[in-house]
Amino acid sequence: MASITSVSPLAVPLPAMGPIAGVRLGSAAAGIRYQGRTDLMMMAFPRGTTVAGVFTQNTCPGAPIDWCRAALEGGKAQALVVNAGNANVFTGKAGVATVKATAKAAADLAGCPAKQVFLASTGVIGEVLPAERITVALPALHEALMEDGWEAAARAIMTTDTFPKGATRTAVIGGVTVTINGIAKGSGMIAPDMATMLCFIATDAAIPAAALQSMLSKGVGPSFNAVTVDSDTSTSDTVLLFATGAAGNPNVPETGGAMLRDFRRALDELLLDLALQVARDGEGAQKLIRIDVTGAVNKRSARAIAFAIANSPLVKTAIAGEDANWGRIVMAVGKSGQPADRDKLAVGVGGTWMARNGTVVAGYDEAPVVAHMKGREVEIAVDIGLGDGAATVWTCDLTHGYIDINGSYRS
Amino acid sequence: MASITSVSPLAVPLPAMGPIAGVRLGSAAAGIRYQGRTDLMMMAFPRGTTVAGVFTQNTCPGAPIDWCRAALEGGKAQALVVNAGNANVFTGKAGVATVKATAKAAADLAGCPAKQVFLASTGVIGEVLPAERITVALPALHEALMEDGWEAAARAIMTTDTFPKGATRTAVIGGVTVTINGIAKGSGMIAPDMATMLCFIATDAAIPAAALQSMLSKGVGPSFNAVTVDSDTSTSDTVLLFATGAAGNPNVPETGGAMLRDFRRALDELLLDLALQVARDGEGAQKLIRIDVTGAVNKRSARAIAFAIANSPLVKTAIAGEDANWGRIVMAVGKSGQPADRDKLAVGVGGTWMARNGTVVAGYDEAPVVAHMKGREVEIAVDIGLGDGAATVWTCDLTHGYIDINGSYRS
Repeated sequence: MASITSVSPLAVPLPAMGPIAGVRLGSAAAGIRYQGRTDLMMMAFPRGTTVAGVFTQNTCPGAPIDWCRAALEGGKAQALVVNAGNANVFTGKAGVATVKATAKAAADLAGCPAKQVFLASTGVIGEVLPAERITVALPALHEALMEDGWEAAARAIMTTDTFPKGATRTAVIGGVTVTINGIAKGSGMIAPDMATMLCFIATDAAIPAAALQSMLSKGVGPSFNAVTVDSDTSTSDTVLLFATGAAGNPNVPETGGAMLRDFRRALDELLLDLALQVARDGEGAQKLIRIDVTGAVNKRSARAIAFAIANSPLVKTAIAGEDANWGRIVMAVGKSGQPADRDKLAVGVGGTWMARNGTVVAGYDEAPVVAHMKGREVEIAVDIGLGDGAATVWTCDLTHGYIDINGSYRS
Repeated sequence: MASITSVSPLAVPLPAMGPIAGVRLGSAAAGIRYQGRTDLMMMAFPRGTTVAGVFTQNTCPGAPIDWCRAALEGGKAQALVVNAGNANVFTGKAGVATVKATAKAAADLAGCPAKQVFLASTGVIGEVLPAERITVALPALHEALMEDGWEAAARAIMTTDTFPKGATRTAVIGGVTVTINGIAKGSGMIAPDMATMLCFIATDAAIPAAALQSMLSKGVGPSFNAVTVDSDTSTSDTVLLFATGAAGNPNVPETGGAMLRDFRRALDELLLDLALQVARDGEGAQKLIRIDVTGAVNKRSARAIAFAIANSPLVKTAIAGEDANWGRIVMAVGKSGQPADRDKLAVGVGGTWMARNGTVVAGYDEAPVVAHMKGREVEIAVDIGLGDGAATVWTCDLTHGYIDINGSYRS
């Protein structure tokens, strides 16, 4: 791992995160890979806590992903154990054994079935993760769990992250105010080595697992699934949402519905907040880039075009160089394979339309665009001119920092 | 354009290229964008020369691509005009007017219909290319055309290329020896700004246009279409193949067939030679990477997996860092979306299998792999373990040089 220690210029401060009734959490230094820092995190939840999850689409996932997918079928959770430094991916039978041993140790401490323990690992791929490193550290960690451990938890799950990521929101369900806290780690959608995206959210609301899962599955679409750093997809990406029910709100139907409208708003806000924090910590990122595509034949097409732009190394390096190179944006639209008509296409940056109807805008003045490109947040707008499909995605620029972080030897 | 002047460490020398009977060619300094170098190239062919072409799949192509696609329907060519420095892409009606004016000027000089003139442009996108720059320079250029102009032609079409690219082969058709010369430019499949891939091939063989087109369309699959630098697709990529017929070989049927077997071999070799020269000049490239995928469910799937690896920024930066990080290769296989079974997957580098059946190989010794990674040519092998599908693609590493070249301001 490279010793990149400077904090991203796009960092935002960790907000004050109060307790979530029912959740106790904390961290420990288990020496899994790092020295002199925490690398193990645990959360404990009361009996009856419901859970929802979304996982990587990568077809070579880590052993903890297999475990969580199976555990999720029960819809209940009483513990979460996460380690940083080793992803426990491509570790064969040894990896499965580590997952089972960790779940059993946590279940014994929490006094719950192993299937109510959720697990996540992030770090290097292909090295065996010795279960003892975790199981030896767990009893003291469990003993010290407390309601006020959110910042410590956010720090313990970091890998190449340059700042801890957290968000908090409140919502009203049936007249009762509930709170949602979330923490995340990741410097991209991306790196199997050190930059898996993990996100753990807890609320004191009482919400059935099915309704929770429905909201989470929809919520990740315009948030975590609308963010890319380098188009690479980790083998360990995980988002888990736990609901303790300690707030005592009125019963919510299995199917959710109107009663959860405000909660859904708050959850969506929190997911987007955390996803953008991940983009802001993209490896080597100097600029946060927002890409709005309109006028595509449909929403799916708009999204594919937006990602073609967001993942183009040429677009990303141009922005790193503060070059309003709209030709590269046109190229990316064209390579997406989506319906587009060169002679109807419009491209804008920072609110200034530079090209329209297949050519540069008459009298185009580059000055306001050049000024916009010098800022930390760059906005690209593309109108395809064919329909009503629209999508927004976020990414960051591609800089020497990315090469430094990912081109250095692991050891 | 960045002032990157050092030659790629992967460069190969331009071979001696003798004349192709019937082809006269040359170059001129037309001052389109560059100072102190040639930037305009012309070839003239005798009446009856047949032509085949393959063009970018980008849906926002440049005006010269539109022109060539239409001209190709006639199957005959008597002139080719290529400029470097301005791609004439996204230039609207002005771009179409420049194409028409250039074709007319060349047709007048060559004494042929405009539809037998082929055109290509490479360089910056979105800036109007004034036709006069070209038409003023063409008469003197045409006057000076000669049979021995291949090296000058190879140099005149360069943009961010750090070395001129050419190849030559001979073949036998019906007992008569024919020669094929080809030149190419490009530092990737890629950059619309300065790194479009262009390739112009001529032979003295007599081959009907239909047979020529069939061989070229098939030939680019395992050559130019098996090379990627950064996954970006230029708006101007063009491969044109001209056959003058001056060698006087026996008549070849419209459908080609067995009579062209040796020619096809020679053409395929030449296409791969030129394609690998492009990969060797990938922007910032320090290492040429060959990726062999076997055991996929079919050939198409193998190719998709190979490209997922070849286009992964994390794999490419790891190789730049001489890190045999097979975890990133596993990640790339998994993100390809193609059928793969983590527990059947094998990954090797430089002839050493590092991971097999879902985990690291017992007693894996990294030493030979580390030594291989230090070389200029890196070989990655992935066996999916599911079927007989195989594919090979080439790419280069992702280095600081790529950021330098593409992250600097255009002016």
